[in-house]
Amino acid sequence: MIVYFKNMRTRDELKQEAIFEATVKLVNQTGFVAGSVAKIAREAGVSPATIYIYYKNKEDLLVSTYKAIKQKIGVAFLKDFDDSLPVRDILKKLWDNGFEYISIHSEYFHFAEQFSNSPYAEMVDRAEIEKLFEPVFKVIERGIAQKIIKDVPFEVLSIFIYFPIMTLSNKRLHGDLIITDEIIESAFKMAWDAIRY
Amino acid sequence: MIVYFKNMRTRDELKQEAIFEATVKLVNQTGFVAGSVAKIAREAGVSPATIYIYYKNKEDLLVSTYKAIKQKIGVAFLKDFDDSLPVRDILKKLWDNGFEYISIHSEYFHFAEQFSNSPYAEMVDRAEIEKLFEPVFKVIERGIAQKIIKDVPFEVLSIFIYFPIMTLSNKRLHGDLIITDEIIESAFKMAWDAIRY
Repeated sequence: MIVYFKNMRTRDELKQEAIFEATVKLVNQTGFVAGSVAKIAREAGVSPATIYIYYKNKEDLLVSTYKAIKQKIGVAFLKDFDDSLPVRDILKKLWDNGFEYISIHSEYFHFAEQFSNSPYAEMVDRAEIEKLFEPVFKVIERGIAQKIIKDVPFEVLSIFIYFPIMTLSNKRLHGDLIITDEIIESAFKMAWDAIRY
Repeated sequence: MIVYFKNMRTRDELKQEAIFEATVKLVNQTGFVAGSVAKIAREAGVSPATIYIYYKNKEDLLVSTYKAIKQKIGVAFLKDFDDSLPVRDILKKLWDNGFEYISIHSEYFHFAEQFSNSPYAEMVDRAEIEKLFEPVFKVIERGIAQKIIKDVPFEVLSIFIYFPIMTLSNKRLHGDLIITDEIIESAFKMAWDAIRY
């Protein structure tokens, strides 16, 4: 059960929230193929008809859930974003925000990962998702222009500064390694060594 | 149809090869849940009964396919492995081997990735897979002992030296970036900067 103390939501918002959480939970448990709208509705405690008020079909539900997750991740990563700091400090803040958010909402990342590896991924406008991280792109551009960061395509930089956050947070990828603050620190040092000019 | 020029295989080996390729193809197309033994048999041009000669059940087929892929990847990565070279050169060779093999067999990596993100992943003995890469572990250990490589857990090193090969080879992860030899080179430089002492 989700209890909201700070912001009371309307009944409509609560229903959408319940559908969102049910979609994440069921897909993570059983995969994309098995997660039917009927099962998601049951998990969310609403009727299937209610889901169809908000979403055209299962695809729309899954794609919207993915977009909502990316939105949440974008907001979390950019918390206390301060353009005036040195590039390294801005990236360190994003890194720490990332680990903090993942430790609370690993299920969102698990869903996003599965989604990216599914055929549904092609139904998402990549530009729309990238827009959420635009302030980061600007910092990177500035870093490249000022010869603080290596002049390589953004996709290559993100392999060393963004993907490690995902990988370190995925138990199936890093095995039995316990992620301590020390590991997060030294991994950032490595990421920075990789991308710095 | 697969034609073998160099080594003629027995009928048995050809059947197993066909089952292997059919499993990879079907799982990549439709996911783990939808890929039934009957469908895989049809794709491989054998009867379902034939599959059950070699594999106990669907789980066994999927797990064995994953292990076979990891075996192939291990052999390919370690091609021309020369323990006497400098650590950096050994890792560069592994890196280049990796990209070469992926460019030919991206479907194996796609299968392995899906598998790692599925509940089946828990049915694999991690130690058995790691054994395939033991010569690499030894090089890394030597590099750490000689203060050539940062003294961080192997799982953290692999995030910067092994995962980038996977990520750069996954179209869904790097988007529209065209992977040129130049990109492979500068990404290795970044990986090396990340892990070196």
